[in-house]
Formats: sequence, structure tokens, C-alpha cells
Amino acid sequence: MRDTWSYFPSGKIIFGNGAIHKLGELLKNMNARNIFLITDKGIVQSGILNTVMHILEKDNFQVKVFDGTTPEPPVSKVLECYEYAKKEINADVIIGLGGGSSIDLAKVVALLVAHGGQPQDYFGENAIPSAIAPLIAIPTTAGTGSEVTSVAVVTDTVNNIKVGISNNYLRPAVALLDPELTMQLPPYVTACSGIDALAHAIEAYLAKDFKYIQAEGDILFQGSAPISDTLALQAIELISKNLVTAVQQGTNLEARSNMLLGSLLAGLAFSNAGTAAAHALAYPIGGLSKSPHGEVTGLLLPYVISYNARTTGDKINKLAQALHIPAHNLHLASDKIQLVVSHIIDILQQIGLPTQLHSIGIKREQLPEIAEKAIQIERLIRNNPRAATIGGFIDLLEKAY
Amino acid sequence: MRDTWSYFPSGKIIFGNGAIHKLGELLKNMNARNIFLITDKGIVQSGILNTVMHILEKDNFQVKVFDGTTPEPPVSKVLECYEYAKKEINADVIIGLGGGSSIDLAKVVALLVAHGGQPQDYFGENAIPSAIAPLIAIPTTAGTGSEVTSVAVVTDTVNNIKVGISNNYLRPAVALLDPELTMQLPPYVTACSGIDALAHAIEAYLAKDFKYIQAEGDILFQGSAPISDTLALQAIELISKNLVTAVQQGTNLEARSNMLLGSLLAGLAFSNAGTAAAHALAYPIGGLSKSPHGEVTGLLLPYVISYNARTTGDKINKLAQALHIPAHNLHLASDKIQLVVSHIIDILQQIGLPTQLHSIGIKREQLPEIAEKAIQIERLIRNNPRAATIGGFIDLLEKAY
Repeated sequence: MRDTWSYFPSGKIIFGNGAIHKLGELLKNMNARNIFLITDKGIVQSGILNTVMHILEKDNFQVKVFDGTTPEPPVSKVLECYEYAKKEINADVIIGLGGGSSIDLAKVVALLVAHGGQPQDYFGENAIPSAIAPLIAIPTTAGTGSEVTSVAVVTDTVNNIKVGISNNYLRPAVALLDPELTMQLPPYVTACSGIDALAHAIEAYLAKDFKYIQAEGDILFQGSAPISDTLALQAIELISKNLVTAVQQGTNLEARSNMLLGSLLAGLAFSNAGTAAAHALAYPIGGLSKSPHGEVTGLLLPYVISYNARTTGDKINKLAQALHIPAHNLHLASDKIQLVVSHIIDILQQIGLPTQLHSIGIKREQLPEIAEKAIQIERLIRNNPRAATIGGFIDLLEKAY
Repeated sequence: MRDTWSYFPSGKIIFGNGAIHKLGELLKNMNARNIFLITDKGIVQSGILNTVMHILEKDNFQVKVFDGTTPEPPVSKVLECYEYAKKEINADVIIGLGGGSSIDLAKVVALLVAHGGQPQDYFGENAIPSAIAPLIAIPTTAGTGSEVTSVAVVTDTVNNIKVGISNNYLRPAVALLDPELTMQLPPYVTACSGIDALAHAIEAYLAKDFKYIQAEGDILFQGSAPISDTLALQAIELISKNLVTAVQQGTNLEARSNMLLGSLLAGLAFSNAGTAAAHALAYPIGGLSKSPHGEVTGLLLPYVISYNARTTGDKINKLAQALHIPAHNLHLASDKIQLVVSHIIDILQQIGLPTQLHSIGIKREQLPEIAEKAIQIERLIRNNPRAATIGGFIDLLEKAY
């Protein structure tokens, strides 16, 4: 049994409508002159890059832009970006502007700028010796929470798998969050990223209590503990109340703001507590399906909650409350769980996302292979409140099929 | 109107029964060999220092101890401690072990070790150029939250006033919280420090919304904002549920643990949101009365809530809920406020603290002077949800008399 939990803080958080206009002042306070900005073509086309460049040019910063980010960037893309940075500018500060992929790419480039080497040198946990280069993360989606987390996901093209680099030094020095930058996000992207944030928050909240995590020594993902629980519950409340509106009314700034805040809080929570079975199962499914990560974790979420039903204890009451489900009249925990599961399926349907694995191109005969691969992702599986078995996971996947 | 809020993170938090035994490992991870430990005679007598020294000696650290901390240490004490540190050891890490005064003293010494000069050079806000020396804060009371805050309070003996040094660089690198270290705290100290933590949390939660704080540019205390609100509410719930038990049953480890967690969360909240009228009024009263700081803020708290009654808006519902007051049947906000006020007076009575100013040695003719001095503490007064007027404050103080 573990006696203590740790809470690892993020960098400074700046949040608000028009917060992007604080960027110049922020960079001056960091004594920065030379900026390397990492983004993608979508941000260029949307005009957001223009807005940011205008702010930077007003204060005469030297800026070099890399706009070639691709989803879950392959190692070759990381090296291309890093080489470009080295050749073009002696950066004082690196900015990641965009969705999780741009911010994750910026994290790994900031790591290489500080410590050299190859991305592969840092795969896994605890391989970074000290701080990375100063990094400002500016998210344009409400989903990954990458602006505050300790994780960067890249694609290992040699072994054809997604790989995480997880280390507290990867948390950006500053997270600059401006809801107005998320207003142009199309409904489908809003839905996929938003439901991923909900999955982060719910898996962090329902994670096994830190006391009972079976691991020795310092670990990054520590299971459920008081600070992450508090932040996760608030994230669940915000996201469940605002996701459908944000998808259906993209210009609703209040819903956009609450989603961005919710995904931020979910990021703070899950980067301490960790996620669990829904994310473990999403890794092998992500290798077999072209669906975005959030579509997969969102689809799995109700079935995983159902799988974990008898291990959530008293938490089901607060979870139902945070989801605004009137469950206080129900006496049986199983009835409450059923309401929670139905509620999440209802959200998925209202935001137009699939609720069954066959509709994202998974074949029934692939289910055992998915279960086997998922169960090997130790750092997530040990967080799941119900023990993972191949048989149990296949049963879960059958229900989700 | 302000558009953005910031959240300034604390250092790493480690929390749990027996967490003190992580100290050796923690120092090794910080590459420390030479330790300067600041504490007070009470901690020596309680045996806590012995426990800590035993842990440090096992790993052969070089340790020098300064055990001369006094409450709200005067500038001369800070200099004495700093000179002792300079003479005795080239410290890699400074440890503050004890109540808020030991931790505050350690903060200012860590500041002088890093940047030289005199404490006076740093009075006020924003005068610290960069990081202070690596600091581990180990609280033995559940009250100030100093282990995570940006504030150190010292006494300016030349002008005979308490002075705060407030800067985000003052947040300790590590907060190490072990509830077992608080078990020996006498009932009166438990009461005073615990009610101070409740005052931190309630004032942070009811602080004026960040949008309407009248100040230009970057400010340290920003008013109510989402992350501090979330943490403050959880602190209120924990403290209000456990304070009476912790006072009445000092060996109740669960109550002690929840109080230590509550004061930590309150520290995270108020060091971002700021406190308000109860703390502004407590400064001049503290100069006139020998009562501990917490006894004064706790006494004032119900009267300040009453003064602010019509400006708390919807927050009164969540506040009542966090205080476990069954207020959902009441329709009038004024009835709910009244219940909250009575509930806090009831807590004060149950923990044996005074509820009226005349019983802590304040004279009626001093009330106008107190009101006038309090209203000048701009950074706290601007946070108060109801505008402060001399007349209003005198009226408040008359009710509290």
C-alpha cells in the first residue's frame, strides 16, 4: 500500500477572452527576443497565425515559423522541425500554437533544443535530466490539455506505434488560453476533442485510489488523489454542461470558454492521476482504425464505466452530480451507474459521434488482439479500478461492438 | 474591466502519513548535500526535529539547524538567521520546518541567500528578480498554507508594523505535508490556525470576480477565478467538516489529515485570489491585540460575510453546500447568509475561540482607527465584494464588538 501522493504543478496559466494579446508582454517578461513558433497549416488558413504574427511584429520580436505539424507527429517530423529551428534561429522561447499535435511537437523540440539527441532517447518515463527550453503553449482546441500536461505523443514509424514521452519537465512554462481562438473549430473536431477531455476527467476521477496502485517508487501517474479529484470533478461538470452547445453552436463563446477551461482542468487532473482502461484500449484501436483519438476514447468511455461499475464506490454519487444527473432519488449504485452510462451515450449521440466499434472500421475478430495489447499498457492498466483480464476486456469490447 | 485571469502554480506537493520519510530521497533527487534547516524551539521540544534529524543523518547530509524562529519574525531575526546560515554552511537546500513563521522565515532567508541585500529591499510586491534558493517547506500546523503560497510575513520593528513580502518566486520548490507531524498541536493552536485556513478559503471564494478588480497590469491577488474557486470550495468543505474534531480529538489522524489538506488547498486558492476585508481588518487589530492572527481573522469572518451579504450572488448556495448547511429549502439569499453566519459562529464557539472584539482587548474607541487603517490596504480591500467605506467598516466592527 502506498502512503503518499504527489501533485506536480503545471506552469503559469493565463486564461481569458483576448488573452492572446498578452503574448507580447509575456515574452518581454521572459526576456525573449528570438521566437520559434510551431503550428500547422490549418492554423495558417484560419487566420489565427496572422493574428499572432501581428501581435509579435508590433513588438519587433524575431520570429521563425514552422507550420508543418501533422497529427501525432512521426519522429522524422520532429527531427525536421528541430533541424529547421537550429538552422534558422537561436530561439529564446518556443511557442506551440494549435491542437495537441502542435503543442506536443513543440514540447519535444524544446526538449531537443535543451538536451540534444534523438526523440527515441526519451521514449517512456523519467529520461529527461532537467528543464526543457522555455515553452509557451497556446491551444486552439479544447481537448488534450497538452498545454499543462507532462506528456507528448509522437509516432514511432520504425515500429509503427504511437509512443508517449512522459516527464514533468515537459509541462510548458506558460499555458496561454484564449477561448476566442477556438471559435472556428468545426463541429466534428470540437466533438472529438471535447469528448476526449471528458474521458480524461472521468478516467482520472474514477482511477484507482493512489493507496492501492501497485508500483514501487516515484511514479508519474499516481491514481486518484484529492487535488486531481477536485479538478477532475469540476472539469466533468463544465464539459458535460457545455460540450453539446459548443458542437451545435460553434460561436457560443461562453460554451467555448467553459470547454477550454474544462479541458485545462482535465489536463491538470489526468497528468497527475493518469487515465485508465478507455485510454489503454484506445491505443491498439487507434492503430487499427483511422478515427481520431478522442472519437475512440469517447466511444469506449460508457462501456469502461460499465465494466468498472462495482469498483467506483461512493464516487458514483459525485460523478452523477457533476454530470447533472438527478440520481439522489436512486438507492442502488447499479441504477446510478446505468444513468451515467446512458447520459454519456446520449452526449455522444447529440454530438454526432459513433457509439459502437463496428462503425469505426473495427472487425469483430480483432477484439481479442485489442484486449491483449491493451492489457500490456501497465501505467494505465494499473490505474483502472477493476482488475483487467483478457476475458473481461473482450467482454467489454463485445458490448462496445 | 479585466479580461483575463492567471493561475500561479505552487511547487511540487507531497502529501501523506509518513511523508516525512521521503525527505532523504527528495533531497538526493535535488542533488543536495548541505542543508540549512530553520525551525523553532517548540518543534525541538516536541521531538519532531529529532525525527527529521534522524532521517537526514541516515543519509549523511550535512545539516545546520537554526531553531530561533519567533512569531512573525522581526527583520533583526531574519538577518540573524541569514548571517548564521552564511557563516555555518554553504546550503544547497533550505528547509522550513514548523508553523507559518518558520516557513516564512525560511522563505526570506532563501531569498537573501539567492539575491543578497536586506529584507526591506523586498517589502511589497514584485521586487524579486528571479528564483530564490531551493526551499522545502514542512508545515507542522494546518493553517497558513505558507508551504505553497507566495507570501512571507515579517515584522518591521522600525515602523512597528507587520509587513508582507509577496512574490511568486517565494513559493517553496517542494511542500512536504505529513499529517502525523500535526498530531501534537495543542487545541488552541489547532483552533487558531484552522479557523485562519477557513478564513483564507472563504475570503478567496467570496472575493470580487477577477473581471471587476480595479487595478492595472499584472497583479498577484486577482480576485475570484475558476481554479481558485474550485480549490477554495473543497478547502471549505474539508475544514468545516474536520476543524471541531481536530480541536476536540487531537489524535484523530483522519481529521488532522483533512485539516492539513484543507489548509493546503486554501493556500493555493488565496495566494491566487487574495483575501479581503477580514484580513484587511485583522492587520490593524493585530497591532492592538496580542491575539494570534487566526483568532482575529476567525472572529471577524462571520461579520464580514454579513457585511458582504448582498454581493455574494449565486455563490451563497455553493458556500452553504460546502459548509454542509441544508439551505436548499430556503428561497431568500438573506436567510442563507444568516445560516452561514450562524454556522461559523457555532464553529468558533465549539473550538473555544472568541466571537467578539471586546474579549480580545480591543476598546470601542479604537474602532474608527481600525477602520481607517484597514481601508488603506488596497490589495485586500479591492478584493472585497462590497465596497469598503469608513462608515460601513465602523458599523461592521460595532457589530463584532
